[in-house]
Amino acid sequence: MQRRIEVCLTPALLNLYTIDSSIVVVIDVLRATSSIVYGINNGAEAIIPVANVEDCLTYADQGFLLAAERNGEVVEGYDFGNSPFSYTKEKVGGKTVVLTTTNGTKALHMASTTAHQVVIGSFLNLKSLCNWLKVQDKDVLLLCAGWKDNFNLEDTLFAGAVVAELRKDFTHFDDSCVAAEDLYQLAKDDLRAYLHKSSHSHRLAALNIEEDVKFCLQLDICEAIPVLQGDSLVLLKTT
Amino acid sequence: MQRRIEVCLTPALLNLYTIDSSIVVVIDVLRATSSIVYGINNGAEAIIPVANVEDCLTYADQGFLLAAERNGEVVEGYDFGNSPFSYTKEKVGGKTVVLTTTNGTKALHMASTTAHQVVIGSFLNLKSLCNWLKVQDKDVLLLCAGWKDNFNLEDTLFAGAVVAELRKDFTHFDDSCVAAEDLYQLAKDDLRAYLHKSSHSHRLAALNIEEDVKFCLQLDICEAIPVLQGDSLVLLKTT
Repeated sequence: MQRRIEVCLTPALLNLYTIDSSIVVVIDVLRATSSIVYGINNGAEAIIPVANVEDCLTYADQGFLLAAERNGEVVEGYDFGNSPFSYTKEKVGGKTVVLTTTNGTKALHMASTTAHQVVIGSFLNLKSLCNWLKVQDKDVLLLCAGWKDNFNLEDTLFAGAVVAELRKDFTHFDDSCVAAEDLYQLAKDDLRAYLHKSSHSHRLAALNIEEDVKFCLQLDICEAIPVLQGDSLVLLKTT
Repeated sequence: MQRRIEVCLTPALLNLYTIDSSIVVVIDVLRATSSIVYGINNGAEAIIPVANVEDCLTYADQGFLLAAERNGEVVEGYDFGNSPFSYTKEKVGGKTVVLTTTNGTKALHMASTTAHQVVIGSFLNLKSLCNWLKVQDKDVLLLCAGWKDNFNLEDTLFAGAVVAELRKDFTHFDDSCVAAEDLYQLAKDDLRAYLHKSSHSHRLAALNIEEDVKFCLQLDICEAIPVLQGDSLVLLKTT
C-alpha cells in the first residue's frame, strides 16, 4: 500500500496540501491538544473548539464549561483556560467544554473544512494515535498549529515523533517529515531541555506554565483519540 | 549590541516578519542563488532577477544573456538556465544576465519591497557572507526560497549554517533558527548524503542535475556577495 505522510509546519501553509482524502492530525501540544486529549480521556462528553472568545459566549446558557485563553492566559470570567490540570475526571467527566485557544482551534477549523477526518494528537496519546493511523488506509497530514502562524519547535517535535513511529508503514515522506523526525531523534531523550533552548522558553516562561509543560511532554499516559464530529471533538471509537 | 536573527522557512511566511530595518539573505541553494553568487564572483556585471519568462523577453534586445528555467529545465530558445556551470568567467564576465527561476526570484522580489537590504547567500560564499553580516549593525532574516512555497531541506540547511556562524554575534534567535542550526549540525559532514534521504532527491533526481548539486554544496569557493540594487544584483563592495 502506497501511503503518504506529510508535515505542515504551520496553518499558514495548509493551502499547499491536498487533504480531502487524508486524515489530518492537529497538533498544538503546548497546551490545547494535550488538554483536549486529557479531557476526552477523562470522560468529557465533548470539547467544542471555537475560533474566538465571543463565539465561546454564545454557549454560555447551555450548561457547558467555558474555557478561554488568549496569549496563554485564562480570560476573565471563564471557568478555565488551556491548562491540562483543568481537564481532570472530577472537572470535566460527563461535561461538554467549549474551548477557544490562540493557535489550536484556528488550525482545527481550517482543517475541518476539507479534510477527510480530523483527529487530535499530543505526546499524551502518541502510541495510541499511531497504532490507529497505521491501520487506516489513508494518507496522513500532521498539522502543526505553530505560534501565530509561525513555525514552533514543540509541535514539530511531536510531528517528528509520529513520523518516527509510522516510517515503516508509509512510503512517501516530504522534506518537513525528514526535518521533524531528525529533530525529534535529537530531542527525544530530554524534550524539556531541548525546548528550553528555543524562543519557546521565552514565550512560555512569561506565562508561568512550567508545570503544564512538564505534564504535556509525558508520553502515552492516555489512550483516547479525540475526533472531530460536526463541531465537536469526541472520543474516537477504535474498535 | 542586541541583534536578532530569524529564519523564514518559505516565502509564504514572509509577511509574518518585520524586515524594514533588516538585512534579508535570500537562499535558493539548488540552484539559483548558487549560480548568482558564482556568476557575480566570475565578473558578471549584473544579474537581473525577473518573476517570469515573459518578463525575461522584454530584455531580449538589450544585448543581455537570457537565462530561464521552469521546473528545473532551460526554457527553449534561452541562452541558459540555472546550472552554475553556465556562470563561468568565459560566459558571463562583463555581461549582464537576466534570470528567471521557479522559486529564487520570487523570494527576491518579495523581500525587495520592504527589506532594508537584500543580499544573496549560498554555500559557495558562506564564510564571506557571514563575516560581512557580523559587522553590520542590523537584524538578519534568512529567507529560504523553498519549493513552490513549501519547506525544503537544502535551503534550511544553509540557513542553519549561517546561524551556526553567527550565533556568538547575535542575541535573539527564533524557533526556526534552532531547528535549522541543529539540522545543519546533523548534516554538515556529508550534506549530499543527507539531502539524498529527502523528497528533494526525488525532485532533483528527475532533473538530472547531480553534478550541479555537488557543485552547489561546496563551501567557500567564492568571496562575492551579490546585493540587490534597484532591479539588479551586483557585487557588494565590502571595503
